[in-house]
Amino acid sequence: MTPDPNDPIALTQALIRCASVTPADEGALDLLQTALTGLGFACTRLPFGHPPDGPVDNLFATIAGGSGPHFAFAGHSDVVPAGDLAGWSEDPFAGDIRDGFIVGRGAADMKGALAAMVAATARHLAKGPLQGRISFIITGDEEGPATFGTTMMLDWMEANGLVPDLCLVGEPTSQHGLGDMMKIGRRGSLNAWITVNGAQGHVAYPTRADNPITRLVAILTDLKARVLDTGNDWFQPSNLEITDVSVGNPATNLIPAQARARINIRFNNEHSGAALADWIRATVAAHAPSAQVEVKISGEAFLTEPGALSALVGDAVHAVTGRTPELSTTGGTSDARFIRRLCPVVEFGLPGQSMHKVDEHAAVADIAGLAAIYGVLLARALSG
Amino acid sequence: MTPDPNDPIALTQALIRCASVTPADEGALDLLQTALTGLGFACTRLPFGHPPDGPVDNLFATIAGGSGPHFAFAGHSDVVPAGDLAGWSEDPFAGDIRDGFIVGRGAADMKGALAAMVAATARHLAKGPLQGRISFIITGDEEGPATFGTTMMLDWMEANGLVPDLCLVGEPTSQHGLGDMMKIGRRGSLNAWITVNGAQGHVAYPTRADNPITRLVAILTDLKARVLDTGNDWFQPSNLEITDVSVGNPATNLIPAQARARINIRFNNEHSGAALADWIRATVAAHAPSAQVEVKISGEAFLTEPGALSALVGDAVHAVTGRTPELSTTGGTSDARFIRRLCPVVEFGLPGQSMHKVDEHAAVADIAGLAAIYGVLLARALSG
Ligand SMILES: [Zn+2]
Ligand SMILES: [Zn+2]
Repeated sequence: MTPDPNDPIALTQALIRCASVTPADEGALDLLQTALTGLGFACTRLPFGHPPDGPVDNLFATIAGGSGPHFAFAGHSDVVPAGDLAGWSEDPFAGDIRDGFIVGRGAADMKGALAAMVAATARHLAKGPLQGRISFIITGDEEGPATFGTTMMLDWMEANGLVPDLCLVGEPTSQHGLGDMMKIGRRGSLNAWITVNGAQGHVAYPTRADNPITRLVAILTDLKARVLDTGNDWFQPSNLEITDVSVGNPATNLIPAQARARINIRFNNEHSGAALADWIRATVAAHAPSAQVEVKISGEAFLTEPGALSALVGDAVHAVTGRTPELSTTGGTSDARFIRRLCPVVEFGLPGQSMHKVDEHAAVADIAGLAAIYGVLLARALSG
Repeated sequence: MTPDPNDPIALTQALIRCASVTPADEGALDLLQTALTGLGFACTRLPFGHPPDGPVDNLFATIAGGSGPHFAFAGHSDVVPAGDLAGWSEDPFAGDIRDGFIVGRGAADMKGALAAMVAATARHLAKGPLQGRISFIITGDEEGPATFGTTMMLDWMEANGLVPDLCLVGEPTSQHGLGDMMKIGRRGSLNAWITVNGAQGHVAYPTRADNPITRLVAILTDLKARVLDTGNDWFQPSNLEITDVSVGNPATNLIPAQARARINIRFNNEHSGAALADWIRATVAAHAPSAQVEVKISGEAFLTEPGALSALVGDAVHAVTGRTPELSTTGGTSDARFIRRLCPVVEFGLPGQSMHKVDEHAAVADIAGLAAIYGVLLARALSG
């Protein structure tokens, strides 16, 4: 039985009861599709991919009427695993309410927001004829590799002439209270694997060997020493972390033949992934010309310059909560990094401090408040 | 059947046929004991130790007569494993002669030298009444941990009033031709294990974590940057090598909790192991106060200052080969590092370039030459 689409609390509970740990769905998209179809949406399922990262199911839903902009809600129905079950005080997939909080995996990230989007839309449509278009871009693969999720849905949307004018992603951006923060961009991220080859030999005869660890330490020192930037108006300073080093030489009297390291850079909009990759390669080559470097750019930094969209969201937040959200670019990546190539995109959602942890939870009052905020946003965005 | 003790070639072959890979003996010490007993030596077996590094068998043999100094030959009957059998052109434990070379494990390191010592002694004793004392300090554990070998034999010798006045170790010190190099000291060696503990966290929030790799790289950079010394008249510069680094973090988005490294220092007589250990600990503490450091000193540097003993050996070499041996302190450690606490000690033996490799070999002519050199040495050392 599908809950009343006007009730974001019941809808959140129903979604949590679908144990949609990536790449499983367990009925979560069907539940959303049934609710949206009932509201008059045209729904298209977009399954993509193949093992090992797929197949992944996705849902695009859209409704249009009158004249007005194309507003899109974006989000994900999948969740991270429950983790240590013994650490939970409630069944993570029961969706129970305790002391005013829904406790369960996905309550904050981001089934509560999906339910608030549906409820806000149901109420908006009930108020009178739609002016413009509302779309839902819901992927089942945001917590996984994201290869067969939002980015492929956007290709499909482009091919079908369904490019939005503005988009809100419902990730949990609030910090200590609903409305204190929204995100207008995200840092980029890349990983690099560095393999230095030397020449094995006995430690007593170092001149006959070539210690790859010595070269690797010099490389890592240089990489870590560079101040990438000092941040700017909208971004924290970019940051490099060495996340792994491995040699695996059990012999105390041997200089090993090979040494490897892995680094991660979280970078702001003063850098491109390609330029950073070039710098990494050049730094490595200066110390170890024969070294191998493999760089994988997970996402470029992006910024939706503060403007009409962020003002719209900020005003809606203020209207409901009295708070003026900080415009932030902190934290990890999200699918907004893909959407930004189609249209302005910002992120706003529930407080996220419990996301990915045991006893993930969302306040019933916050979910209700978020539905109200999304409702004001829809009304103002589609006011003609 | 024990070969003629006057024939160092047959004795070398017989010793090679005992596959005495540490800690196995396979009759090697019995063979030496039988030969030395036949020459009038008093033989004492000195088995020491317990698993896993023992028990190890050792042989102390001594003969005395008239008045004169106590001269000791020292060496080891054990050998390293044959390694890749397919790489050998002869059975490594057959002791066959091919084109003037005895090919086999231990031919150079150092069964050829043990045979030369026995032959030289047999001939010396045949020339007339002994003036002084000749001892053999033969361990079965030089290629292994050396815990239950020479060092414990020396304790026993001290306790029994059998401290030599001078000692020659028969390690393969020659380089390109018999007699071109002898060793008058060795560098010391130590290993240190460094474990840096940090605080695990997400790479997107580095200020909430404490990356132990960053600290470890700074430590290794500092350790590697110090010029320990520039060498001196008798020693190469001391040298530090990083021999292993390990983190083992599979997650690209995680800052790990722990990082480890291992270093080795080969140091000359301008350093003590203890002072180097203090420096390592201080350097580590400067970057990571909570890090753990474990230091194991394998041996201190030592030097037998050029003098009477080195002149005696050099003269014997020159008398037989026409060469004047270079006085060197290069290469790995040997049991001379233990013996030096009892008396002056130098090392002289066969060319060692094939030692520990496949097709280890010694020229028949070199073994004969070495027996002649040891004979001249005995004659001059015990001339009263
Ligand atoms: Zn999320
Ligand atoms: Zn040896």
